[in-house]
Amino acid sequence: MATRNPDATRARILEAATAEFSAFGIAGARVDRIAASAGCSKNLIYIYFADKETLFATVLKQHLSLVYESNDFTPDDLPAYAGRAFDYAQAHPDVMRLMAWFTLEQQAGGSPAERAATMRDKIAQLGSAQAMGQVDAGLPPAFLIAAVMSLATGWSVASPFGPALDPESLAAPATLRANVVELVRRITRVPPGE
Amino acid sequence: MATRNPDATRARILEAATAEFSAFGIAGARVDRIAASAGCSKNLIYIYFADKETLFATVLKQHLSLVYESNDFTPDDLPAYAGRAFDYAQAHPDVMRLMAWFTLEQQAGGSPAERAATMRDKIAQLGSAQAMGQVDAGLPPAFLIAAVMSLATGWSVASPFGPALDPESLAAPATLRANVVELVRRITRVPPGE
Repeated sequence: MATRNPDATRARILEAATAEFSAFGIAGARVDRIAASAGCSKNLIYIYFADKETLFATVLKQHLSLVYESNDFTPDDLPAYAGRAFDYAQAHPDVMRLMAWFTLEQQAGGSPAERAATMRDKIAQLGSAQAMGQVDAGLPPAFLIAAVMSLATGWSVASPFGPALDPESLAAPATLRANVVELVRRITRVPPGE
Repeated sequence: MATRNPDATRARILEAATAEFSAFGIAGARVDRIAASAGCSKNLIYIYFADKETLFATVLKQHLSLVYESNDFTPDDLPAYAGRAFDYAQAHPDVMRLMAWFTLEQQAGGSPAERAATMRDKIAQLGSAQAMGQVDAGLPPAFLIAAVMSLATGWSVASPFGPALDPESLAAPATLRANVVELVRRITRVPPGE
């Protein structure tokens, strides 16, 4: 199969790798299980992706791109942005687990370069929205964005707090979503009378 | 050594196990490395703790007890509570990593029974504070507690968002702490005029 359609094979490998890394992390993942699941040889995976770490980095980068594409940053409406980030986190437990494994298994706490570039862009946009009075300007933009993301993803399977401390909230997802949006409204709104 | 002072040996094993589990997680931890670090035999660890999973559960339970002891829950002053939780999370990266590994490696998403009992108690206390008008009552207590913990721990080494998205904030820890406290003030304060 691989020789007939390399793109399809590559896509199958990335799909199998997402499941494997999500379940077991980087150290725990086994390339032979990924090969078996993708229906190709282990050797082919090394030809395409060099090693397990590069394969993980490729999988993570692919999913981060999908995250960014799926949720336009709306600095003038951070509650709505948080609602969409919440939806994505709840719908994609695999991606949340990939990010959590990456955080735990990275030695230097590094992050993909794309992520830093995307963040710089968001900081600039939010800074403008604050300067225009659309968002409260009392807290730094980078800090606010990190806070919004912590709240929006706080009830995902990869969070040690949300579902573990507050399991019943998962039974009413629409209410949970509305409550997360309300938190973000509270931390970003311009105080009345200003 | 072990036969002379079993308590000291047990304490050394737990200390070595904390470092090993924090670095490698449950699946990645090696009991022989813990034994070498604690200066005892691998067999003694199995005599004391049965298996690696029980050893991990013992380590996590011990640290959760220390977390609870170190930070009294003050439902009438959640910003101060969040500030103390922030201090603990920043000072104890090992503990934050243990909780993150536990979350990723648990099959059923279970949580130590003590944690659930402590949470029930906090929910009752916060519900009372809301009924007395000390805290805004617009959001459920369990949800608010989980939100406070997500924010208070959002800049720990185990968070995929805080330090990765907002690394510069770590250079000014007092400002970061004040900003986290301010977020919690915003989400819990009773709106003016009510």
